[in-house]
Order: sequence, then C-alpha cells, then structure tokens
Amino acid sequence: MVDILHRIGVENSSPDKVYDALTTLDGLSGWWASDTKGSAEVGGVIEFRFAPGGFDMEVLELQPAERVVWRVVDGPAEWVGTTVNWEIKQEDDFTIVLFGHVGWKEPCEFMHHCSTKWAIFLMSLKALLETGTGNPEPRDVQISNWH
Amino acid sequence: MVDILHRIGVENSSPDKVYDALTTLDGLSGWWASDTKGSAEVGGVIEFRFAPGGFDMEVLELQPAERVVWRVVDGPAEWVGTTVNWEIKQEDDFTIVLFGHVGWKEPCEFMHHCSTKWAIFLMSLKALLETGTGNPEPRDVQISNWH
Repeated sequence: MVDILHRIGVENSSPDKVYDALTTLDGLSGWWASDTKGSAEVGGVIEFRFAPGGFDMEVLELQPAERVVWRVVDGPAEWVGTTVNWEIKQEDDFTIVLFGHVGWKEPCEFMHHCSTKWAIFLMSLKALLETGTGNPEPRDVQISNWH
Repeated sequence: MVDILHRIGVENSSPDKVYDALTTLDGLSGWWASDTKGSAEVGGVIEFRFAPGGFDMEVLELQPAERVVWRVVDGPAEWVGTTVNWEIKQEDDFTIVLFGHVGWKEPCEFMHHCSTKWAIFLMSLKALLETGTGNPEPRDVQISNWH
C-alpha cells in the first residue's frame, strides 16, 4: 500500500471555514470539480465529475473543524477502495490542512500524476479560501498531457 | 519506508532539455534553489541552499535524457539517506518527468509539506522549460507557514 500525502496552510482563514470548503457541495465545487453533486452527510455519496470521468466518495467521517474522511466507491479502478483523509488544525495565522489519499495498491504512473494534481487542487482550495476564487476543473492548472 | 511521487509533462520540450535542467547548475538554479553550487557529475555533490537551510545531493547516476539519481548526504535529518529519482521520457508533444523522493523513514508532517512543495517546484521546472522562466526559491510559491 502506498499513500499520497500533502500539507498546505491557509492564511487568515479558520478551521471552520476550511471544514466548510470540504464538506459542502458549494465549497467543494469551488476548488475541485465545478460539477459536484450528491449528499455530503455521513453515509452520503458525493459525485465529483471531471471532463475525463469522475469519482464517487462515500463520506465516512465528519468531525467539524477537525477531520473529514471519504472512501472512493466509484471511479478509476486504481482509486476504488482508497481513502481520502483531511485533518485540519490552526497554527498562528494559518489553518493547516494535512491531506492523505491512502491505500493505493501500486505506485503506478497514474498515482504519480494524481499526487501532483492533488497538490495543484490543494493550492486551489487555499486560493478559494484566501481570495474567494479557486481553480476547480475545468479551469484547473494543466500539469501534463493527462487531465 | 514511504515515498513522495509526482508526474508532470513539459510541452514542446525534449528529454535532452529536461535532462539539462536536472544536471547542470544553471538549469537547477533556474527552477529549484537560486543558490545552487557544487559538482553535478557522477560522484559529485550538488549544494542547494534555501533561506531556512539546504540540501547536499550526491549524484549517484546520470543516464542522458533518461534518468538521474541523487542521494541526500546532508540536510534535514528526515532527508539524509533518502534518494531522489528522475525518469524522463517522451509522449507525443510532452516530455514526461516521473519524480520520486523515496525512502522516508516516517510519513511525518514535514514529509507531507515536502510532497506539496516538490509539486510546486516541478511546476517551476515545467515553467522554466516552457517559458524560459522558472520560480526557484526565493521567488517560489509559498504554500503554508513553513518555507
């Protein structure tokens, strides 16, 4: 099992605001997939749709202002069964986000791509919270020949 | 052992140009640390210096236009003994870079930070090759309260 791990800090925000951006359809569509639907409650499934396909995430855990856990229930074969974890905490003027997309079976080339792409989307989350405008797909930064 | 993995694609470049950006002091200082000195030959040590400190990389392997391997011989305790691997290949109009910073002892918070930071510097490498201008430290993108 191999994991994608990241850390960003959002300036002049708060754990509550970061949590909202990770747990509401409005927040999620502002930084990841513009086309985000479904149920964001525990036990619900959030449907993220991108030009080349999409991901369905079951919401496993919601601890307000602290922790969010999703399990991938549909999407690319490499993603299904993996888990996405978000930990939120405050350090001085920064709200820190510790991100993990864990449980990949293999360190395949697609995993390399997704690791970089997650970093870009985390910077979009940071921009959304700091400036009011994120860069969700389809206006996300293109990192390669893969979308 | 845990690994940081990334993948980018550089448009309208070539494996030779990417290899040069990874194996010359001029190239390296254009996208990672402006303050880069030392010997970039096999067996040499490249000294990358940043505001908060630096990394010394022994060059283990150089396969022109294909593969570069460094071992961290000095720097933060978490980095020493880890390995940085670069694989280069061409796919259509994109030169693909597969990056690995492998052999971390623990998935510590600093590793999360370095994973995101590597993604940002890989985008700087891509920008350098595509536009002629990268964003090496100190004009790199700040991702959090940590430099």
